[in-house]
Amino acid sequence: MPRISAATIAEHVAHQEAAVIDAARRLFDARGYQQVSLRDIAEEVGLSRTSLYRYFPTKAHLVQGWFEAAMVPLVDASAAAVAGDGSAADRLDRWLVVQLDFILDDEHTALVSASLASEDLPDEVREHIGARHRELYATLVPLLEGPAGADRALVRTRTLLIAGLVRSAADLVRAGVARDRVDAELSRSALAVAELAPGRRG
Amino acid sequence: MPRISAATIAEHVAHQEAAVIDAARRLFDARGYQQVSLRDIAEEVGLSRTSLYRYFPTKAHLVQGWFEAAMVPLVDASAAAVAGDGSAADRLDRWLVVQLDFILDDEHTALVSASLASEDLPDEVREHIGARHRELYATLVPLLEGPAGADRALVRTRTLLIAGLVRSAADLVRAGVARDRVDAELSRSALAVAELAPGRRG
Repeated sequence: MPRISAATIAEHVAHQEAAVIDAARRLFDARGYQQVSLRDIAEEVGLSRTSLYRYFPTKAHLVQGWFEAAMVPLVDASAAAVAGDGSAADRLDRWLVVQLDFILDDEHTALVSASLASEDLPDEVREHIGARHRELYATLVPLLEGPAGADRALVRTRTLLIAGLVRSAADLVRAGVARDRVDAELSRSALAVAELAPGRRG
Repeated sequence: MPRISAATIAEHVAHQEAAVIDAARRLFDARGYQQVSLRDIAEEVGLSRTSLYRYFPTKAHLVQGWFEAAMVPLVDASAAAVAGDGSAADRLDRWLVVQLDFILDDEHTALVSASLASEDLPDEVREHIGARHRELYATLVPLLEGPAGADRALVRTRTLLIAGLVRSAADLVRAGVARDRVDAELSRSALAVAELAPGRRG
């Protein structure tokens, strides 16, 4: 009889959840979020409805699981970009590229569209999404707090201003402005918001 | 018999349209956009349904009329801010204050919420909204094009980056960050995006 360790169970759950999210994405993509039921998803992934409910009791929980699966690696990559080598300007540039690549990925577009379509996201799911965004923005703190330490309101203000620049930059790339052009202006603007001197490229 | 000039007719139409939009806003506010019919609005404003349809054949046209009534003075005020006295930095600062005041006004919040609730906005209405936004952003061009004239892609890029900063600034004020703090950071950041030297306050 195979030994079932906690690690094996956790892996099994993660694997099943990923399979369910994949199946849900295919169906949302083909038919639209509103037109897909948990029953359809259970059928697509080959689970009984009862089993599926153990992973995701509602479509909103599935959106949360999907969001989680996308955000954990994004937060890690963002923290790594800031923690890596180079000047503060180089590290901010890497952080910006990580964000812009993520927003421009089809994965993100599909996830945002499911979140918006799901008008009935419960407060707990919205709070979770908000908390993960705060965690994402917190990766910028080492670049934004001055040598004297953090002025919290100022760091928060600059973080959100930079987030606004990144969203606009994504809109510009989607509208057909050349990516290298957008990257250059985004970098210059975000460095100014952060009051960081430009790197070697500047 | 009173003489009816074109000016009188145009004034009458403008007055009626404004009364209808006011009535619609009151009802949307009280019951929510989806729950209000053109019939309800006709009753509220004291017009027959047939008369109302002459002004606004659908709720989407009413949203367009409302948007128009809000945007025309905003575009005028934005152009006036840029055309006025002072350094380029002073003029950009005035432009930013005009935008932020507008976004933070209850009028804007109600209008955005009606636009979002109206999922069935016809393409012509969406195109109209897009065209007015382009007109609004075009008021920035005199500040953004260099002495050598406009590099269109660059002006467009900087315009949208500044628009992203303004949106984030509005979010920050709504979230409770002090307005003067937000104004100062927004000004500093937008001046950097525009490559303008700060004004006397800088």
